[in-house]
Amino acid sequence: MKETLDFLSTEFTVRDYECDIQGVVNNANYQHYLEHARHEFLISRGISFAQLHDEGIDLIVTRVEIDYKYPLRSRDKFVVRSSVQREGNTRLVFVQDIFRIPDDKLVVNARVTGVATRNGRPVRPGDIVVKMGLD
Amino acid sequence: MKETLDFLSTEFTVRDYECDIQGVVNNANYQHYLEHARHEFLISRGISFAQLHDEGIDLIVTRVEIDYKYPLRSRDKFVVRSSVQREGNTRLVFVQDIFRIPDDKLVVNARVTGVATRNGRPVRPGDIVVKMGLD
Amino acid sequence: MKETLDFLSTEFTVRDYECDIQGVVNNANYQHYLEHARHEFLISRGISFAQLHDEGIDLIVTRVEIDYKYPLRSRDKFVVRSSVQREGNTRLVFVQDIFRIPDDKLVVNARVTGVATRNGRPVRPGDIVVKMGLD
Amino acid sequence: MKETLDFLSTEFTVRDYECDIQGVVNNANYQHYLEHARHEFLISRGISFAQLHDEGIDLIVTRVEIDYKYPLRSRDKFVVRSSVQREGNTRLVFVQDIFRIPDDKLVVNARVTGVATRNGRPVRPGDIVVKMGLD
Repeated sequence: MKETLDFLSTEFTVRDYECDIQGVVNNANYQHYLEHARHEFLISRGISFAQLHDEGIDLIVTRVEIDYKYPLRSRDKFVVRSSVQREGNTRLVFVQDIFRIPDDKLVVNARVTGVATRNGRPVRPGDIVVKMGLD
Repeated sequence: MKETLDFLSTEFTVRDYECDIQGVVNNANYQHYLEHARHEFLISRGISFAQLHDEGIDLIVTRVEIDYKYPLRSRDKFVVRSSVQREGNTRLVFVQDIFRIPDDKLVVNARVTGVATRNGRPVRPGDIVVKMGLD
Repeated sequence: MKETLDFLSTEFTVRDYECDIQGVVNNANYQHYLEHARHEFLISRGISFAQLHDEGIDLIVTRVEIDYKYPLRSRDKFVVRSSVQREGNTRLVFVQDIFRIPDDKLVVNARVTGVATRNGRPVRPGDIVVKMGLD
Repeated sequence: MKETLDFLSTEFTVRDYECDIQGVVNNANYQHYLEHARHEFLISRGISFAQLHDEGIDLIVTRVEIDYKYPLRSRDKFVVRSSVQREGNTRLVFVQDIFRIPDDKLVVNARVTGVATRNGRPVRPGDIVVKMGLD
């Protein structure tokens, strides 16, 4: 397994509509935050979904693991710290942690596994891996 | 202005994740309910977005007016009652009301204006209007 | 009717999960943007929902009018420009416009009416109005 | 580990606003479906969040694992099949699978771990477990 040395930090502020009856961010919304941070990560590496799609390649999520450590509340600021690893020939694993700002309280640990597919079948991520510095 | 005589009633139950910190359904979620009810209405008239799109026609919303009369809460059952009118040559106006079940408490009055477009320009809704019984 | 001279501009970037099958931001999500911008506006005037709630006052939305002029797409940057007016004794009307960045393309015009309530009944907004510079 | 013999099936239909640019249900929305199905499960066992909260007990999710096997699309019907197990003294594990209707295509496998907390500290789920038939 080879891991990139670097990571991307993406900052957010909790919006009130993301909180539920309990006054904390609804569990599903963390997946929205993580997804947005992954897309920012890919873009920072010059990887465009649209361009990949035009080349016949789609990136899809096959597995999500999220540990909820501490809840975010209305107007909390936080950062998603994202890095990526290869796993086997076809899988990419995003390791993503969420920390509250400014006290660095750990909010969420997540592992999100994705594969590159062509016509619905997994393929070696190829060029994507090079752009991510994982080859 | 000609109005269809009939309407469609679509039933829902409030899901907890649709409620916000105040313990009531977040205002934006009523638009989700209304949208789903309009799509059910169109399908009940044999109108398919996908087929229209293949024929080069897109239905888009140009204006929404919503009066919030009474809030829905966790697990409330409710019905969206939808009908449609023509307005001018190109506009369709959906009149949609939401009532709580079983006490028929009025929750929302809404008017949603849409137009049929081809290549981004409004066109007479034509066949759509016939299917809706509005010609 | 008296209007504040100033307004608040709140910047956003479209996140992919806010877009729907048509590749544009789903209509309901504009209400999320507008709500977040109104809350930012209130906070910029020193008005806290939590503090008001502790004083027995709740601010609720009674009517929304939105004109959709041009759709936002994935990763578009945009600004919500919010100002507020009084209307009668109890109503506050937020006038909110959305413009795409950087070309200032008009995306949405909105008018959102709210009232201050105590025990579910409208009251004069009082101190809120003073803080907004509307007295 | 003891498992209840029975499970609850909750039926849904995909709403268009739950789909994203790729034309499939956005990954985060499956968590919404799973949450709603768990709440239905608890209610079917006579367990009320509100009543628990009044007794000082909160049920919170500490970990989610979701395997995405096949995507749902606009208007697909599906069922969430939920059962529950005990794990150790304080944890409850919901095993939840999503199948498309009517062809029983497997869409999602999920394991959602929760704990009962009092004042933010895990407690034995006690009465909850009895009601679930897990004692």
